[in-house]
Amino acid sequence: MALPSINHAVDDAFIGALGDIVGDRVSRADSVREHHGRDQSYHAAMPPDAVVFAESTEEISDIVSLCAKHRVPVIPFGTGTSLEGHVAALRGGVCIDVTHMDQVVTVNQADMDVRVQPGVTRKQLNTYLRDTGLFFPIDPGADASIGGMTATRASGTNAVRYGTMRENVLSMTVVLADGRIVRTSSRSRKSAAGYDLTRLFVGSEGTLGVITEITLRLHGIPEAISSAVCSFDTMEGAVNTVIETIQCGVPIARIELLDEVQMDAINKYSNLDYPLAPTLFFEFHGSENGVQEQTETVHELAVSNGGGDFQWATREEDRSRLWQARHDAYYACLALRPGAGGMVTDVCVPISRLAESILETQKDIQETGILAPIVGHVGDGNFHLCMVIDPDDADEVRRATELNERLVLRALAMEGTCTGEHGIGYGKTGFLTAEHGDAVSVMRAVKDALDPHGIMNPGKILPGN
Amino acid sequence: MALPSINHAVDDAFIGALGDIVGDRVSRADSVREHHGRDQSYHAAMPPDAVVFAESTEEISDIVSLCAKHRVPVIPFGTGTSLEGHVAALRGGVCIDVTHMDQVVTVNQADMDVRVQPGVTRKQLNTYLRDTGLFFPIDPGADASIGGMTATRASGTNAVRYGTMRENVLSMTVVLADGRIVRTSSRSRKSAAGYDLTRLFVGSEGTLGVITEITLRLHGIPEAISSAVCSFDTMEGAVNTVIETIQCGVPIARIELLDEVQMDAINKYSNLDYPLAPTLFFEFHGSENGVQEQTETVHELAVSNGGGDFQWATREEDRSRLWQARHDAYYACLALRPGAGGMVTDVCVPISRLAESILETQKDIQETGILAPIVGHVGDGNFHLCMVIDPDDADEVRRATELNERLVLRALAMEGTCTGEHGIGYGKTGFLTAEHGDAVSVMRAVKDALDPHGIMNPGKILPGN
Repeated sequence: MALPSINHAVDDAFIGALGDIVGDRVSRADSVREHHGRDQSYHAAMPPDAVVFAESTEEISDIVSLCAKHRVPVIPFGTGTSLEGHVAALRGGVCIDVTHMDQVVTVNQADMDVRVQPGVTRKQLNTYLRDTGLFFPIDPGADASIGGMTATRASGTNAVRYGTMRENVLSMTVVLADGRIVRTSSRSRKSAAGYDLTRLFVGSEGTLGVITEITLRLHGIPEAISSAVCSFDTMEGAVNTVIETIQCGVPIARIELLDEVQMDAINKYSNLDYPLAPTLFFEFHGSENGVQEQTETVHELAVSNGGGDFQWATREEDRSRLWQARHDAYYACLALRPGAGGMVTDVCVPISRLAESILETQKDIQETGILAPIVGHVGDGNFHLCMVIDPDDADEVRRATELNERLVLRALAMEGTCTGEHGIGYGKTGFLTAEHGDAVSVMRAVKDALDPHGIMNPGKILPGN
Repeated sequence: MALPSINHAVDDAFIGALGDIVGDRVSRADSVREHHGRDQSYHAAMPPDAVVFAESTEEISDIVSLCAKHRVPVIPFGTGTSLEGHVAALRGGVCIDVTHMDQVVTVNQADMDVRVQPGVTRKQLNTYLRDTGLFFPIDPGADASIGGMTATRASGTNAVRYGTMRENVLSMTVVLADGRIVRTSSRSRKSAAGYDLTRLFVGSEGTLGVITEITLRLHGIPEAISSAVCSFDTMEGAVNTVIETIQCGVPIARIELLDEVQMDAINKYSNLDYPLAPTLFFEFHGSENGVQEQTETVHELAVSNGGGDFQWATREEDRSRLWQARHDAYYACLALRPGAGGMVTDVCVPISRLAESILETQKDIQETGILAPIVGHVGDGNFHLCMVIDPDDADEVRRATELNERLVLRALAMEGTCTGEHGIGYGKTGFLTAEHGDAVSVMRAVKDALDPHGIMNPGKILPGN
């Protein structure tokens, strides 16, 4: 049975007009539509009515103009690796796939920046940069597209040192909801010239415009890199090591927490034999001496908090293996219970509340009886729950949903946020007002001003949109 | 002769209604109005019709509600140290002076953040923090209020390492144009929960709302701090040392460039005897070893670029004297020509274009015959011109105005910005479209959505507003 079209404006004439813009790079095939209505989350997928594979900013401008004229929703699509239903075509419409726009446009080595098309992925970019001595540090785990990472304000394991997309996007080209093309700012490192449109579009999840080009800050590849793993007697000990490391001003590049359940999962999945205990994965960047100094400081802090020996990974292949295991945490969780599905969620709290937040969550997990390993970018106060459930078991789904809700409300009560990095999509719109109160009306006013007909990725970020 | 009232809505009845809110903390005295219509710039002052000294967010909400009802402009006022006419009451109205709101509300030592009222100044804050081991690094020179620094997206000498207000404001309380009170975000280090309202209000110059409380990131006071001064044979040598320092990833805390004219000025003003040559002022923060390593690297770079010996300032009083001289650069410029006035301007360019930009500017200065020392936060590509002119000499004013225009247009042609840190105020509205093109319409749409009656600091940022 063919997938139904849900937006009646997307008829044969409309598809013909799309074809006039992109030639044969428009598809209504079920498999293509299915693929583009789904991200990596547990949220219900919703296929768009059509998918276009755009090849330039100008094409996207023409596509959006056409959609605007016919009030047809527009949903930008990169690698589909988002986690809160960001790409589901809730009101049908046209999905603009940017994966053909995969060129690195300009590397400004002296300025340590790079201009890329939105379909370039982070791994592709770093491969391209390999001989420049520079790298792009933001690493959300998935090999996401830079466009998608910008749109969702991605961060990940390196954010504690290098910041998130908020700090690393210098400028963007955006196609607005009426098809106009604008550039959000110049390429200079700082500016006080008017409203910060760059930061307004970073994290706007396709609801204000389509990002068609991005200028990113790059960073010098450090002279020395060293990774280590350390197990702790208690969760408090591990978290306190994190807090003290940050407070001591150690410029640590990565500091990741995994609880004992998560360690069990990655041991099994990645064929490792770490102790089943709360564990920190560290990475240190700097000069040889700097790395030495950082590791000594952190090692002392770990020992005083009940940490065991550091297991080192200094050779590149060992480090890669270590971080691959960390990045495979999600798949490792799923493998704990073959046939089950994952409900992934994240919150972020001020670091002083991190231990309390995690310990109460662990208690909650135990009471709920849900299999839910904890893993987190804890240097920022950000942690994730991967709830491994049977999606066909209504009671289990209900318990997991409640666990998520309690996690979020606890984070908000601790002056935290309902999502540190996954974004709102349509999975967390219900929490937006709980977090922001009347400030949601400011977001709504901005949305209505820039997208008066509500065609840009409708149903995302703002509730009822 | 009493100053005329320029906004007819501000009549006795309106003042009476203001008095109902703030008691006797409302003034129509000429001296008070004069003081509040003027910043430290050369732009024409314009006194507001009345000044209120607010003491709480709730009071400001009531004041703005009253102003909204009567369509009376609202101009927030901190220390009046802005540089592009930000506080001039171009359409009359009510100036809200926040200097009575000078309390540090909460220091969260473990989270390294602090919540302050907008009238707290940066020096006051750092004095308050003295015993915590933490400090607030942003240092625009003037002892500005945190509210004003937030509103103008201030940065200054430490920005190359610690970022600007953009990176250091975690959250704000804002009174909107209709009097509603909102909080822009939670206190967590990162969030992906909706539009980045914090960054939208940072740098909005009072045109979107009144900032009534600010939560700031703090940083640990480094174990070791060391400052040095180094003279260069040529401007290129000095600038190339800056560029290479940044490219080598040296986490330098301050790297300031002063040209020979500026050095002459500060030698005379601050009773120093540095060589009259292009000069860099450095500051290094870190561990003892880290600072040692940084200074060795930078020293090598300086020598290879024609730099002389480093003159060290490691004792706190010597460092203070050095940076005080740097901060007095503006007054030193003015003292070069007693009775003259200063036209201060700044631009920011990608660092690869910095040498070219400064050298062409120097040529321009010479051709124009204007006395105009150059000083800059060059690690970010940001530099200033202090044009010392006779404000009553129409020809000199014209030549200075043209010099400024060429400086800005050259920066824009080099993918830079018309202002790195001073902001637009009403002095640079004419350059906004030259820099942002059609993106100005996006700023306009945001402005109209959040301030439909145009009462918030009218005439600032957006041309013709």
